[in-house]
Amino acid sequence: MPQVSPLAPERFPEMPPIAGVRLATAAAGIRYAGRTDVMLALLDTGTTVAGVFTRSKCPSAPVDWCRMHLKAGAARALVVNSGNANAFTGKSGQAATRLTAELTAEAIGCKPSTIFLASTGVIGEPLDARKFGGVMDDLVANAAPGAWHEAATAIMTTDTFAKGAAGIARLGTTPVTIGGIAKGAGMIAPDMATMLSFVFTDAPISARALQSLLTHGVADTFNAVTIDGDTSTSDTLLAFATGAAAAHGAPMITRATDPRLGAFRKAFNAVLANLAEQVARDGEGARKLVEVIVDGAVSKRSARRIALSIANSPLVKTAIAGEDANWGRVVMAVGKAGEPAKRDRLAIWFGGIRVAHKGERDPAYDEAAVSAVMKKPEIVLKVSLGLGRGRDRVLTCDLTKDYVAINGDYRS
Amino acid sequence: MPQVSPLAPERFPEMPPIAGVRLATAAAGIRYAGRTDVMLALLDTGTTVAGVFTRSKCPSAPVDWCRMHLKAGAARALVVNSGNANAFTGKSGQAATRLTAELTAEAIGCKPSTIFLASTGVIGEPLDARKFGGVMDDLVANAAPGAWHEAATAIMTTDTFAKGAAGIARLGTTPVTIGGIAKGAGMIAPDMATMLSFVFTDAPISARALQSLLTHGVADTFNAVTIDGDTSTSDTLLAFATGAAAAHGAPMITRATDPRLGAFRKAFNAVLANLAEQVARDGEGARKLVEVIVDGAVSKRSARRIALSIANSPLVKTAIAGEDANWGRVVMAVGKAGEPAKRDRLAIWFGGIRVAHKGERDPAYDEAAVSAVMKKPEIVLKVSLGLGRGRDRVLTCDLTKDYVAINGDYRS
Repeated sequence: MPQVSPLAPERFPEMPPIAGVRLATAAAGIRYAGRTDVMLALLDTGTTVAGVFTRSKCPSAPVDWCRMHLKAGAARALVVNSGNANAFTGKSGQAATRLTAELTAEAIGCKPSTIFLASTGVIGEPLDARKFGGVMDDLVANAAPGAWHEAATAIMTTDTFAKGAAGIARLGTTPVTIGGIAKGAGMIAPDMATMLSFVFTDAPISARALQSLLTHGVADTFNAVTIDGDTSTSDTLLAFATGAAAAHGAPMITRATDPRLGAFRKAFNAVLANLAEQVARDGEGARKLVEVIVDGAVSKRSARRIALSIANSPLVKTAIAGEDANWGRVVMAVGKAGEPAKRDRLAIWFGGIRVAHKGERDPAYDEAAVSAVMKKPEIVLKVSLGLGRGRDRVLTCDLTKDYVAINGDYRS
Repeated sequence: MPQVSPLAPERFPEMPPIAGVRLATAAAGIRYAGRTDVMLALLDTGTTVAGVFTRSKCPSAPVDWCRMHLKAGAARALVVNSGNANAFTGKSGQAATRLTAELTAEAIGCKPSTIFLASTGVIGEPLDARKFGGVMDDLVANAAPGAWHEAATAIMTTDTFAKGAAGIARLGTTPVTIGGIAKGAGMIAPDMATMLSFVFTDAPISARALQSLLTHGVADTFNAVTIDGDTSTSDTLLAFATGAAAAHGAPMITRATDPRLGAFRKAFNAVLANLAEQVARDGEGARKLVEVIVDGAVSKRSARRIALSIANSPLVKTAIAGEDANWGRVVMAVGKAGEPAKRDRLAIWFGGIRVAHKGERDPAYDEAAVSAVMKKPEIVLKVSLGLGRGRDRVLTCDLTKDYVAINGDYRS
């Protein structure tokens, strides 16, 4: 059992129930023994849904399933299992998603097309969906508001802590609630990481407006986190809006541009950002949380690419693991990004201390002060390109021997 | 002192002298103590030169210097140092290259613009080029044919063995000789890796034809090797043709399309391939040499991109370090490459054993046989996409805890 990440929050947050959402978990014996491995979210009639998924050309069967049924925009339940990703499982994988949805729909009395699915775990092993049948009636019977911690725990794989976040905002004059859970932590089987996240709200928002909110919200949150540059076949982020707050006077929102959405959008994005940061804090083997800020690029897009080049560089990440403010490797990573950069305009800061300036080592910097910064668990690495106004940031973690051990030692 | 890579050749190869090339090494005290750190190659008048360099947007000062003087196509000497990359050193870096060239040109009586330079080592430290002055007269006086092993040793940084390769081919009816040296091994300072390679021949070839030969030759050799996906600021491959074989009747070649060049091209490319493979065999921390073959892609370019996505995936590389035929991670890496791929047509082999077929685990494969294959020091990983006729291969190595230790532990 790996130790809890030193970057973990002190405890799972207080999360209020969300009207229209009931949660339950069970141990279906998918792969793990002695722990829960299935979670069910029951959603009241009228719940809308939106989703974003892995860009992998080889997505898992549940990703295919969700994409297929997302257009109708209606959800009655979410079923997530850990232990088996149902990825690269061919026709049997498709059959397993259909059977899971049918079993669930039958238990709650709705159409299978309103059941959303996600799986995380080993790739290439057939998923025996009949195992869900054995626990489904109990799951439906036991589903209750507010079981967030249990739900977040049931979907963990190599995660070392359960991840949740909540927020409250006014929609019109009515308070609405947002709650989400997530799992990380590297990217794939058989040590079974994949990014999954599920966010719920009682706000009344059309599926189309919710999709727009989610697509925009993810750009600077989940899409700005990288652990190892590897992309799971199964990455899934779903948002569900039950609309229950309409009963208390919240207005129905049908367009993402609706000006009444301002406070909600902010709270929604904050929940996404919080969950995404927790994923970075639980990167496999992580000992340091690293925020990479790039400014002065020719565009935000260019800044993002350079920030990702830095954040994915094994040499930058191992240097940070070694507590070395190795700005030479940062120069290397800027240079290899393929984006406009001028060596003689570059400046680099670690933890607010400028170590390089105008293409040379900053003669003024104090080695001892930089050393002290690098010993901290959270490191801010900033690069100024001096070319334009493009700015962006990404979150990552360091690359340690534990990452290699987690991903390479399991057979030995 | 790190152990010699288990993938190293048994010994440095026998390499014949090349007419018109004399080599010498010295200990200039650039950074290391008790070892040589400068090599000089003296080249007879009439030597032509070609080069390919890092695509980094932040190249080192010697890379800038070489690019500037390559167009004239004439070389009288090559000076290489290890211990300091003279990268990100601003104006003082430019001054250092100029001074090095001037010192060398004065010692041998030629123009500074015919002196080619390469440096490998720490980034961002000023290079004190006056140190070359202290050893230059001795270097020139001692330069002798055939000191390949010494030359290959003087340019090493984190390399665990010296790298050389030689070949002989007929040009017209005259035998000509090709000899080259290289260094790896990760990609950058301060543990001071960078890919440098220098290839020499006595064939009479114009600078333009030599450049064409080199540019084409590098595509499937040095450009098809990746250790960690990180690109040095200093990667340099230079080719020099002294033309001395003209005295024995070798025809002067002025166009790369000259039909008389066939055998030479083959031998030249074989030397490049041999050196590039040695770089992969000496990847930092490497315990396995991995050949990634992709076929059935829509084009060679697409196959290359998919092969690099696999070869650079930390999860694939750690799985191979763990001797696990983890084809799920290969699927992941295919999927994230962004190139055309159809999950249900994919097939994957490790060491000739098919483990996945038509988007599912191959039911016929023998776990014990695959385990035996994965224990070998050299692994062939093949992916068939089933879409077209595009085929390519790249070489890489596994990702071990030693890589992290080499690149992360040096401060602790």
